[in-house]
Amino acid sequence: MKNVKMLMLIAVFIIAACGTVQAKESKIVHDPEFVRMEKEFGGQWSADDKLVREKLAALEKKFGKKPNIINILADDVGYTELGCYGGGKLRGAPTPNLDKMARQGMRFLNFYSEVECSPSRGAIMTGRHPIRNGLYNITLPGEVGAGIHADEVTTAEILSRVGYYTGFFGKWHMGGEEEHYPTNQGFDEAEWSEGNPPWWINNKNAKATDDIGGFTQRALVYSPGPENFPYDTGGVMRAKKGEEPEMAYEYSMEKYTTYDSDVADLVTDFIKRRAKTDQPFYVNFWGKANHFWGAHPDFRDTPAQTNTSSQMVEHDYNVGRVIKTLKDLGIAENTLVIWSSDNGPMYTVHPHGGYSLLPGAKGETKEGGIHVPCVAWWPGMIEPDQDPLDIIQITDWFTTIASFAGAMDEIPTDRVIDGIDQSGLLLLGEGKGRRDYVFHYNRDKLEAIRKDQVKLNLKPTNPGFHFFEAYNLYHDPAERFPNEIQNGAWAGPGLTKMVQEHMLQIQKYPHRKLHSYYRDFDRSFDPERSPVYEPQKQVDW
Amino acid sequence: MKNVKMLMLIAVFIIAACGTVQAKESKIVHDPEFVRMEKEFGGQWSADDKLVREKLAALEKKFGKKPNIINILADDVGYTELGCYGGGKLRGAPTPNLDKMARQGMRFLNFYSEVECSPSRGAIMTGRHPIRNGLYNITLPGEVGAGIHADEVTTAEILSRVGYYTGFFGKWHMGGEEEHYPTNQGFDEAEWSEGNPPWWINNKNAKATDDIGGFTQRALVYSPGPENFPYDTGGVMRAKKGEEPEMAYEYSMEKYTTYDSDVADLVTDFIKRRAKTDQPFYVNFWGKANHFWGAHPDFRDTPAQTNTSSQMVEHDYNVGRVIKTLKDLGIAENTLVIWSSDNGPMYTVHPHGGYSLLPGAKGETKEGGIHVPCVAWWPGMIEPDQDPLDIIQITDWFTTIASFAGAMDEIPTDRVIDGIDQSGLLLLGEGKGRRDYVFHYNRDKLEAIRKDQVKLNLKPTNPGFHFFEAYNLYHDPAERFPNEIQNGAWAGPGLTKMVQEHMLQIQKYPHRKLHSYYRDFDRSFDPERSPVYEPQKQVDW
Repeated sequence: MKNVKMLMLIAVFIIAACGTVQAKESKIVHDPEFVRMEKEFGGQWSADDKLVREKLAALEKKFGKKPNIINILADDVGYTELGCYGGGKLRGAPTPNLDKMARQGMRFLNFYSEVECSPSRGAIMTGRHPIRNGLYNITLPGEVGAGIHADEVTTAEILSRVGYYTGFFGKWHMGGEEEHYPTNQGFDEAEWSEGNPPWWINNKNAKATDDIGGFTQRALVYSPGPENFPYDTGGVMRAKKGEEPEMAYEYSMEKYTTYDSDVADLVTDFIKRRAKTDQPFYVNFWGKANHFWGAHPDFRDTPAQTNTSSQMVEHDYNVGRVIKTLKDLGIAENTLVIWSSDNGPMYTVHPHGGYSLLPGAKGETKEGGIHVPCVAWWPGMIEPDQDPLDIIQITDWFTTIASFAGAMDEIPTDRVIDGIDQSGLLLLGEGKGRRDYVFHYNRDKLEAIRKDQVKLNLKPTNPGFHFFEAYNLYHDPAERFPNEIQNGAWAGPGLTKMVQEHMLQIQKYPHRKLHSYYRDFDRSFDPERSPVYEPQKQVDW
Repeated sequence: MKNVKMLMLIAVFIIAACGTVQAKESKIVHDPEFVRMEKEFGGQWSADDKLVREKLAALEKKFGKKPNIINILADDVGYTELGCYGGGKLRGAPTPNLDKMARQGMRFLNFYSEVECSPSRGAIMTGRHPIRNGLYNITLPGEVGAGIHADEVTTAEILSRVGYYTGFFGKWHMGGEEEHYPTNQGFDEAEWSEGNPPWWINNKNAKATDDIGGFTQRALVYSPGPENFPYDTGGVMRAKKGEEPEMAYEYSMEKYTTYDSDVADLVTDFIKRRAKTDQPFYVNFWGKANHFWGAHPDFRDTPAQTNTSSQMVEHDYNVGRVIKTLKDLGIAENTLVIWSSDNGPMYTVHPHGGYSLLPGAKGETKEGGIHVPCVAWWPGMIEPDQDPLDIIQITDWFTTIASFAGAMDEIPTDRVIDGIDQSGLLLLGEGKGRRDYVFHYNRDKLEAIRKDQVKLNLKPTNPGFHFFEAYNLYHDPAERFPNEIQNGAWAGPGLTKMVQEHMLQIQKYPHRKLHSYYRDFDRSFDPERSPVYEPQKQVDW
């Protein structure tokens, strides 16, 4: 009863605070391009914010707590992989659960990630482009000093401060040292793997005879040979905030094949436990699908007979399990589910590493590398069957999650926040997005910019040509015909100004620098020279 | 009353004839690959045919006549152009009407056209690949002897024989001589244009100041200069069967901009007139959208500001008008509407000639040139919201339309028919398609073959390599990674046998040869040499 009163008080406070939300938002240090938009559209945005707050207040009144938030992050899934994005059956991997989510919710046509794994993860957690928080490289086994810095402020931290219980399950990939642990980055409880195949497969326990999924690409495992892998890459860790982590189990290929489903088990268990409490929850389901190795034994028989198709159908099934759990518990209407990929496909392991009809791959700022599928689902709050064209970037989840949780005041104001509050887009629909621009970084280089229909490629395919290439993405979504007639002229001064002010701001708010190095090997990397081949059979003549 | 009795008699006959349909079908000379499939699956197909005939008989009983059939053919629309195929808004050209048709009907994921315009049109009309009927080139203004041969048997002819009233409206593009006229190829009435921009724009009446649509690409019109274009390309013709055609109006750019909508007017008028009669109708709405020139004045203001986007939204609107006419007249449930593109996009006029995320263009057997969007709509008969993966080829419409019209007995048995009866696929759903193979011809060359998931490219990108390239289209729908591991071996003997038997059959049923030539110019092609430039302003110094 005391809790109900407290929550009603909070609700009243939120409603009363509506008028000041815009003022507070403007204290956040955004990119100058956002500031320009805010000047132009701020009036409308304030009116929209009022509607958003009213909807949230009504929901809180109904459920007696703030909304639960689930973030599901898939791995290397290209833009055209899901059925609802033109893939699914055509790729030999139907995705009925994600397609149903999209029909009951919002499917984003212009969602952008960062170019690869760790950077995208850090972007969600901090609302900042990887270049700013320093996490602009993929962390690798044995690396020290790379990861999410202790001074970064995460979604888990700000949501904890406004009463959320927070959980993390799956692939962390933001550093393996103490300061990086999820439970030291704001999560109340976590069970996590630091990384993907390099940790699981090149582990000291790996054997050449391990089953890595039933499909090809085994050869790489033997180079330098798993038995010779010099690091102890560890295992899956488990902890609660304030407690010393323990190892749940050591990495092994056998466990890797079922990992996405195992993580889904942890997530559904978490949801069931936390649904009973007075606290709202925030949980990350960051599985391993569709990374290239390790198809689950139950899902290998897909029409495409590839690792990526098997993992896609497994992951889709697991997403369905999460949604069903919410419906069974009667909390679907009070739970926002955000699903997206972390980056585009990885063709170095084709056909096992995903695909996109958009040219470009993981690690590139061509559309295929960064333009990825994304679905948001929240029955009763997000209208069904929407496919907004509004641009949204992966950093926006930080700010948008904060907005839904009533945690905007907890966002730090001493650094640049790239993420935009897109709560209006989700609850009010197409046209309510708050960015028409994105800065596309590739590691430490600003490599491309999108503004409205136009994309400017700052890494020209013809380096001898002293102009940059501009594409109109409405005319040419696959970036085949640079320098379009209609927009070439306009793209010049408009985009140049946008870049200039972006760069000037960096002087005032310098990037965080991480200095990583590799720790010593546990043993020699290659203790024995390659053996001389002894013929297994020979003929004397 | 007499008609009703007659129709009931026909219905009884159809039901009685069910048992013999399979026998009749097998008299049609099909490709050996189909014969092989028929041997394997014929038992199931007979059972399916029975269900199809029962559904058709029940419908005929309800409406008192056979189903009406409308074939809408769009021009140069790439696979990913419609909203329901991942384009629409993303291309700056929403397609709500076609998307709604797809949701209420069947959207084909593996529909293949021929590589270009005239060949695809001839393929629908005859059920035969262009190589067989001789119409494997685009006809051009001034060309004589090219077109649909008098000895070919068309959909209009066979449907007329079983009681249909037939109409043709729009772009014919299958020859401009008397034998080619739609009304000499089976249609009861027609108003048609022989071709597209070359006829309309390079016409003797064209002027450099004509409005060709408000967008770029004007330059080509002046070369060699429209005033100098030596042919009288004529105009839009109008006729009824057995009557001498008259010219409705001469070609002009002004008329060209509104042509798709004008054709839609004729089609809806035809439908309204014919709905009142006892006869079922078959009508072709083969407009001009999205060919590259001539955006309609009412539809120019699209977000993409391209000719193709304007024509896409105009055409989508016109498709909506046709559907609405059927619903208003209460004949929707007795009318099958088939919509498809005739081939992939034409990039030589980019950004005004369509687009596809699949690489390859009009005139190529790469997927982008031939893998195009296709929707079938028939409320009550085709279940809503289906997206079958079954392969279907544009020749199949000939045979499928014949099947729905009860005209299978009218299909000639003295030549090879490439089209397959896909009525089971439309009425019974995914998995009921009757081909898992396609022969992809480019003009007179067999350039690629698809069998199940595998595509064999017989025109290698590396001609020095003595193996052909095989692609698994589930793994690699954009054909980026030739010679896949899993299917390379299998693709060899299986596909080789399929090609061998296809070629052997041609010796027994030789191709029709057309020998076209260009008629004399009306006047000299370039009556004046290019004038010496007289400076408009000059300075003395």
